[in-house]
Amino acid sequence: MSLTYNEFYNERTGLTVGVNNVLFSEQTPYQKVEVYETDTWGNMMTIDGMVMLSEKDEFVYHEMLTHVGMFTHPHPERVLIIGGGDGGTAREVMRHSSVKKVDMVEIDEAVVRASKEFLPGVGDWDNPKLNVLFEDGIQFVKDIDEPYDVIIIDGSDPVGPAEGLFENEFIQACYDGLTEEGLLTAQTESPWVPEYHPSMEKVFSALDDIYEKSAMYLAYIPLYPAGMWSFSFASKGADPQSDATFERIEVGLNAFDKSMKYYNASVHMGCFALPNFVRDIIE
Amino acid sequence: MSLTYNEFYNERTGLTVGVNNVLFSEQTPYQKVEVYETDTWGNMMTIDGMVMLSEKDEFVYHEMLTHVGMFTHPHPERVLIIGGGDGGTAREVMRHSSVKKVDMVEIDEAVVRASKEFLPGVGDWDNPKLNVLFEDGIQFVKDIDEPYDVIIIDGSDPVGPAEGLFENEFIQACYDGLTEEGLLTAQTESPWVPEYHPSMEKVFSALDDIYEKSAMYLAYIPLYPAGMWSFSFASKGADPQSDATFERIEVGLNAFDKSMKYYNASVHMGCFALPNFVRDIIE
Repeated sequence: MSLTYNEFYNERTGLTVGVNNVLFSEQTPYQKVEVYETDTWGNMMTIDGMVMLSEKDEFVYHEMLTHVGMFTHPHPERVLIIGGGDGGTAREVMRHSSVKKVDMVEIDEAVVRASKEFLPGVGDWDNPKLNVLFEDGIQFVKDIDEPYDVIIIDGSDPVGPAEGLFENEFIQACYDGLTEEGLLTAQTESPWVPEYHPSMEKVFSALDDIYEKSAMYLAYIPLYPAGMWSFSFASKGADPQSDATFERIEVGLNAFDKSMKYYNASVHMGCFALPNFVRDIIE
Repeated sequence: MSLTYNEFYNERTGLTVGVNNVLFSEQTPYQKVEVYETDTWGNMMTIDGMVMLSEKDEFVYHEMLTHVGMFTHPHPERVLIIGGGDGGTAREVMRHSSVKKVDMVEIDEAVVRASKEFLPGVGDWDNPKLNVLFEDGIQFVKDIDEPYDVIIIDGSDPVGPAEGLFENEFIQACYDGLTEEGLLTAQTESPWVPEYHPSMEKVFSALDDIYEKSAMYLAYIPLYPAGMWSFSFASKGADPQSDATFERIEVGLNAFDKSMKYYNASVHMGCFALPNFVRDIIE
């Protein structure tokens, strides 16, 4: 028997991954969650037939979704993660010593359950700073009482339960739920997939309208469509490309217990350089 | 009938592209050259089962292989391309008004023949500045009489006829064939493919030893393994990241007849920011 996982992002073009074994497969009330043992990427989770992460490449997504914002904030203490059920984003957030509390709001408990069992190195589940809530993140953000320094939108693609994460109303609610120095980062799809362009344009336009500063940045993620992934940054004023931010990263990274595998100060500054065809999507 | 092109870069992990038609397939004395009509990428050329380019994504590779070096040189007049049989690199080189002559040394005439017929928008074959030679590029470089301002190594992967392009002797011969202000760029494989790491390390170490300045840079290429591709820059002193280079790009791009699709001054500066795991390969 020879199984392959195939994910097409444009007609019959896409990714093939050799699969040794299907470890988890569950149709939850929200989506289909699966974990495969792969030939070269360790265990790999998919949701509704889209790769979320593998053990071997998850460091890129989690470091880049997290640290670009966390190092831009001068002293992030309270952090909210919407989605993020595999635990990797919370793990990276909690490496920052300034952090006192992380609320992680994941709608689907099956994602956390599957991750704890089959992606055990991804989450830092026993960390006392972590508070996991199985709730609707969109409603949660509307009801925020005590604002957050950083909000991270770590949802799946804009189909199914994550669709509302790309709506203006939600983006405004995040703004209202941030402190005065607050900022937000979000995953915002692959610029190589034409089908996603309307979502990217819509989100970016909303961030640009609502926030004082906004910018798109990129990272190389081998198991995501075409290997190029976009993220969005938005803040009430904090500048991710200032000299002060660069200095903070260089000093801050020295305090980390183990080095990053992807993120560094140069990558932070360079990832905001957008190829012309990407600029054209959001401008 | 439903054909797919499958290229695995690591066990059974890799790329799938929907194929409508096989347009060209020839075993030449050097390699197997094929052109497919694909579902979403236009026509696509492969050599020995590795994607070289498609009509829809070739702009990334050709702009990034070419302009990073061409804009770092203050006034490139004589340019040598080793390989480059599809014609895209020469096309981008000749967009620079300073260029007087381009020698393109391609070992395999079938690549040029297939490209002219099935990738007709890629090459600028009738440009009087272009001189195409069907010869061994390694021997050609050894025999250089009149030195070049820029040498561009546009070979295929380090198996088959392109293997010698990754050897110290060739890299030294390029140095000897450059003018005093001369510089070189080369494609140097995907950092996500462990099999290529020894070649990357070897080439980069040779460039570092032989040239006054050297640096690796990256671009997002959707049809290449894992979507991340590395290039190398080396010079007798010219600095691709100086303020003067940045200024030259900003001014220079205004003179181009049509805008770039990928390359701009920010991308030029940002592409040298290497993720930690890439740095680790070459250091």
